Amino acid sequence: MTVAISHSPEVQAFFAKAAGVGNDQGNPRLKQIVLRILQDSAKLIEDLAISDDEFWTAVDYLNRLGSRNEAGLLMAGLGLEHFLDLLSDARDSQAGHTGGTPRTIEGPLYVAGAPLCEGEARLDDGRDPGQPMLLEGQVLDLAGQPLAGAIVDVWHANTQGLYSYFDSGQSAYNLRRRIVTDAQGRYRAYSIVPSGYGCPADGPTQACLDQLGRHGQRPAHIHFFISAPGYRHLTTQINLAGDAYLWDDFAHATRDGLVGEVERLEGGVARVVFDFCLQPAAHADDEQRSQRPRAMQTA
Amino acid sequence: MTVAISHSPEVQAFFAKAAGVGNDQGNPRLKQIVLRILQDSAKLIEDLAISDDEFWTAVDYLNRLGSRNEAGLLMAGLGLEHFLDLLSDARDSQAGHTGGTPRTIEGPLYVAGAPLCEGEARLDDGRDPGQPMLLEGQVLDLAGQPLAGAIVDVWHANTQGLYSYFDSGQSAYNLRRRIVTDAQGRYRAYSIVPSGYGCPADGPTQACLDQLGRHGQRPAHIHFFISAPGYRHLTTQINLAGDAYLWDDFAHATRDGLVGEVERLEGGVARVVFDFCLQPAAHADDEQRSQRPRAMQTA
Repeated sequence: MTVAISHSPEVQAFFAKAAGVGNDQGNPRLKQIVLRILQDSAKLIEDLAISDDEFWTAVDYLNRLGSRNEAGLLMAGLGLEHFLDLLSDARDSQAGHTGGTPRTIEGPLYVAGAPLCEGEARLDDGRDPGQPMLLEGQVLDLAGQPLAGAIVDVWHANTQGLYSYFDSGQSAYNLRRRIVTDAQGRYRAYSIVPSGYGCPADGPTQACLDQLGRHGQRPAHIHFFISAPGYRHLTTQINLAGDAYLWDDFAHATRDGLVGEVERLEGGVARVVFDFCLQPAAHADDEQRSQRPRAMQTA
Repeated sequence: MTVAISHSPEVQAFFAKAAGVGNDQGNPRLKQIVLRILQDSAKLIEDLAISDDEFWTAVDYLNRLGSRNEAGLLMAGLGLEHFLDLLSDARDSQAGHTGGTPRTIEGPLYVAGAPLCEGEARLDDGRDPGQPMLLEGQVLDLAGQPLAGAIVDVWHANTQGLYSYFDSGQSAYNLRRRIVTDAQGRYRAYSIVPSGYGCPADGPTQACLDQLGRHGQRPAHIHFFISAPGYRHLTTQINLAGDAYLWDDFAHATRDGLVGEVERLEGGVARVVFDFCLQPAAHADDEQRSQRPRAMQTA
């Protein structure tokens, strides 16, 4: 099984042609990427002596993964989404862009277009008998000055660990709002304490994690996009202190500086206070989130 | 954009943990493969300075690919299925397994369980007004001796280039049969001349090919699994001479020794004569086709 042919001029020429290199149509950037994927895949097949059965099992897995819309979930679980954060951190560090609230993964469950509210919002629709939660804080610049008119785009799971839109049992935009900070840079959300998320038990992501000897659980957490004119877009999360999975997150999202303490107020209300600090934007593009394809509620 | 971190001990340790290396559960082989995929993917992201937008476009593509069940079609189009044939050829050559009819790709459109017929079969259901075709020949060993009781499992497209089961307009197992060779190793099929196959125009495989400046067309062809006790399973195709795409097949399946000449008989019948020569099986496993997941007609 030590036969290797992928380095041969004939096979390299074959891959180049398959990737469209040499024809004058199409997208040169994609050709470059596809050629590299073919070269890497062939070498992996040879180096690990991948059998035909293994190859076709993987191809079938891709079909099952996509049919459940779980490619994004798998990227989180296998750590490639966190790797992109580490790489962005390293690029920022080299460019001297430091300070502020750490970034962490978006995950695959954002839905664009949540209702826009001034200063404060109620996130839950009142149907989930969860523990009431008061979530509040400020959006600040690196000098600690409040940023009025920033947008805090927040989304989180219900007490079953499920997200509206992806869970047909919830109302539209339940636990999703965009809150514009007030003159003191403050935002305030009334909601319920989320439960941790678990991968769908019958899905292909969990099937892969099972084979890797891993669980598919996340700690309770709250997602945020934070944006303000003149400042870099921030994608981040608060992961709630005390959760058993806080530092054992299948999606590798918990980071130092992103743990939210939960205070117990009178009457059983949980209070989470969290401030976000934004870096200045060097370019207008930096104010925008990635163009990652996202769900958009249509009803 | 020359920042690279994937080689660092910290990132390598992170990937090892994500792949489940070090825990004592799960499947060690899959852990090895996933770790390699993570390492290769991270290096590709760094080397080609893949942007977040490019990465998430690719992830979204995987979802679209799987939702259309086209992962197998893409593997054919990008040449990885043909590469597996080249690699099997090289392994055979090294092991001294030579001679006989060349293998070529299966493609994603086989359906298991077609009706089993003795010596001859009619393949078409009479509803497609195509040109009548007589397809016949012998299954032989390497010495040219006929193999009685071999199974010729044949499938091909209709005059629209579409396959039953995947085309709801066709009857069950239309243009799919298993024919047992007679005492002289002969098989005979009455059918219609197939048209070439084209990738679904609105599908993700064609979308990728468009970006690579490539078409998604195949020449007219006929698929075969040939098997007989004591002989190596053969997966192959006859590609029909005279087709404009004969040597410009998007799936890279046409090979020397697999071109079928089409003879015109009186009355407008097309005749294709093709013999298959099988290698002896060194192991019982060699008699079987791969365990690739395949469709199974249920109605």
